[in-house]
Amino acid sequence: MLDRIERVRAEMRRAELASFLVSAAPHLRYLFGFTGSNGLGLITSGLCIFITDWRYREQAQAEVRHAEILVVRRDLLAPLKEKQVLTPGSRLGFEASHLNFRYFSQLQKSFDQLRFVATEHFVEKIAIPKSPAEIDSLRRAGAMACAVWEQVLPCIRRGVKESDIAAEIIYRSRQLGSETEPFDPIVASGSRAALPHGRSTGRRLQASEVVVIDYGCTVEGYASDVTRTVAVGEPPAKLRQAYFAVKETCHLACEAARPGMEGVQLDEIARKYLASCGFKEEFNHSLGHGLGLDVHSLPRLGPESKDVITENAVITIEPGLYFPNLGGVRIEDDVLVTAAGNEVLTPMSRELFVVE
Amino acid sequence: MLDRIERVRAEMRRAELASFLVSAAPHLRYLFGFTGSNGLGLITSGLCIFITDWRYREQAQAEVRHAEILVVRRDLLAPLKEKQVLTPGSRLGFEASHLNFRYFSQLQKSFDQLRFVATEHFVEKIAIPKSPAEIDSLRRAGAMACAVWEQVLPCIRRGVKESDIAAEIIYRSRQLGSETEPFDPIVASGSRAALPHGRSTGRRLQASEVVVIDYGCTVEGYASDVTRTVAVGEPPAKLRQAYFAVKETCHLACEAARPGMEGVQLDEIARKYLASCGFKEEFNHSLGHGLGLDVHSLPRLGPESKDVITENAVITIEPGLYFPNLGGVRIEDDVLVTAAGNEVLTPMSRELFVVE
Repeated sequence: MLDRIERVRAEMRRAELASFLVSAAPHLRYLFGFTGSNGLGLITSGLCIFITDWRYREQAQAEVRHAEILVVRRDLLAPLKEKQVLTPGSRLGFEASHLNFRYFSQLQKSFDQLRFVATEHFVEKIAIPKSPAEIDSLRRAGAMACAVWEQVLPCIRRGVKESDIAAEIIYRSRQLGSETEPFDPIVASGSRAALPHGRSTGRRLQASEVVVIDYGCTVEGYASDVTRTVAVGEPPAKLRQAYFAVKETCHLACEAARPGMEGVQLDEIARKYLASCGFKEEFNHSLGHGLGLDVHSLPRLGPESKDVITENAVITIEPGLYFPNLGGVRIEDDVLVTAAGNEVLTPMSRELFVVE
Repeated sequence: MLDRIERVRAEMRRAELASFLVSAAPHLRYLFGFTGSNGLGLITSGLCIFITDWRYREQAQAEVRHAEILVVRRDLLAPLKEKQVLTPGSRLGFEASHLNFRYFSQLQKSFDQLRFVATEHFVEKIAIPKSPAEIDSLRRAGAMACAVWEQVLPCIRRGVKESDIAAEIIYRSRQLGSETEPFDPIVASGSRAALPHGRSTGRRLQASEVVVIDYGCTVEGYASDVTRTVAVGEPPAKLRQAYFAVKETCHLACEAARPGMEGVQLDEIARKYLASCGFKEEFNHSLGHGLGLDVHSLPRLGPESKDVITENAVITIEPGLYFPNLGGVRIEDDVLVTAAGNEVLTPMSRELFVVE
């Protein structure tokens, strides 16, 4: 993890920061190896400090490398005051989206001579290109999602509740070794399939409709994120047509992903193809996002995203079409983008499954 | 929910706030009924506005009551600027722990004439006394946790993995109708039982040790939170002794809880009894916390807590003793505190289960 901290330091020099505060749990894991829920990291040009509370003393000692570990009773900021590692007048960077106002205001009171510099995606950007070990975890998380699907598919049939399918997904995932759910499974059937974020309910699957199922597994903290849409009996013609358009879009976008592309470019390939199929309005979200310790990370693939898909980035490709009061279709796979070509990390069939 | 908003308004008058911003998801659910993940509420003396993004349009229309619903493409703050509902020079309250710096700084830029007032636990305090409907949900969540335990207990035996027990807990919970896990189940066996927050791992249960199991169910957004400690074969004498001290402490504290007490008082009853059993240092966390839409809410029951246990508060009572390199014991129940007496919402046996 030392090279990750060196990359942070290189970015700090570019942004003229004397120190950088790490507050988000996924970032603490990425930079220090800490998997607990409460901690704070400080990086300067010469120092690395990791602070946690007494509940995580043993865990921090077992997990954290390349940093001085400090354990407090309650106030994580106390050691920074005592050790005087923050030079008055110097610039301290912090992630604006990962520090709440309460914390910020405590910092400001404790270090009133400091110049606070709000950053956006500082760590996330560094984390886009994945190391061989990270790729291995992501590949295993993808393969696990495929194995879960094979076990869950036979459970999907008319009369089954959405929430029962969600329960099966979680149960099989955990049995196969998934550490946790990167997000609560989405199981949205009937007209609910038109909601991109429909959680599972007690609704039972009925004939002549589709169900959108979106879930993931976690290996060493790294997530997979896949979606399949299953037809219960013969679906409405519009949804069948949408299915094949989405399937081809998913294929095209997975194939087209290349290092150096901007997110908007890949999104445009998908959006144009769907429009050419007659679906100009129904793809109403972004094409995908980066995958890492955080299930929704950089690069974003959307109509306005200038994020660059670097070599060894792992991204989701998830085109979808949604029809209010009728239903929706989404297919999502995870893709490793390399100079040599793309590797789909979730090699599950994209054929339309029709269950009884 | 109108009475909840009126209680917010009463607090606003006390704090001399012209408007109050609601940003935390549990608070949006509590005050507006919204169960989605992205929204913002604004309460003034005469207005209630609820803002969400297009993904939640239908959901907001189905769920939100007593507020004007505004749907945006992306920027939740935009309608506040357009509608000019925030009077320059007036005081806007916001929850300091539930607004990240990025959001705060956007607010500050958009409304530079406004006076920002950081609040702590503003909504949480109002939410301490539970309504009959809330008590019903909490009671059902408690009963569900008991039903889960009956099903899971036969699965606990030597050789089983911690993670398999966690998988069973989640699976049974979901099948019984739990909406989600309020937190990832804690299953900590052997010396890991000394970690109050040990998540489940691939470790297999062994003879002559204990396993601490802490989990909950969710009904209508309301959580239960229970812990039991099970012995695998005959446990070490120290842990057996600790078990009976913790069990008696749990009983005493549940019985002693009365409306009007401060958190510190109930904590002290538990702490003194454990000390009288010879355990002066091993109870190293708080006695419990309030339960509601958020699993860790007010009132806090700890050595420094001045929070008042009001009538119709629901609290957890979770004494524990921890012995590094040996193991630990915790027993946790949920209690409704009324003027008439206490009701344990999780009536599971506290006897020591010894499994093979």
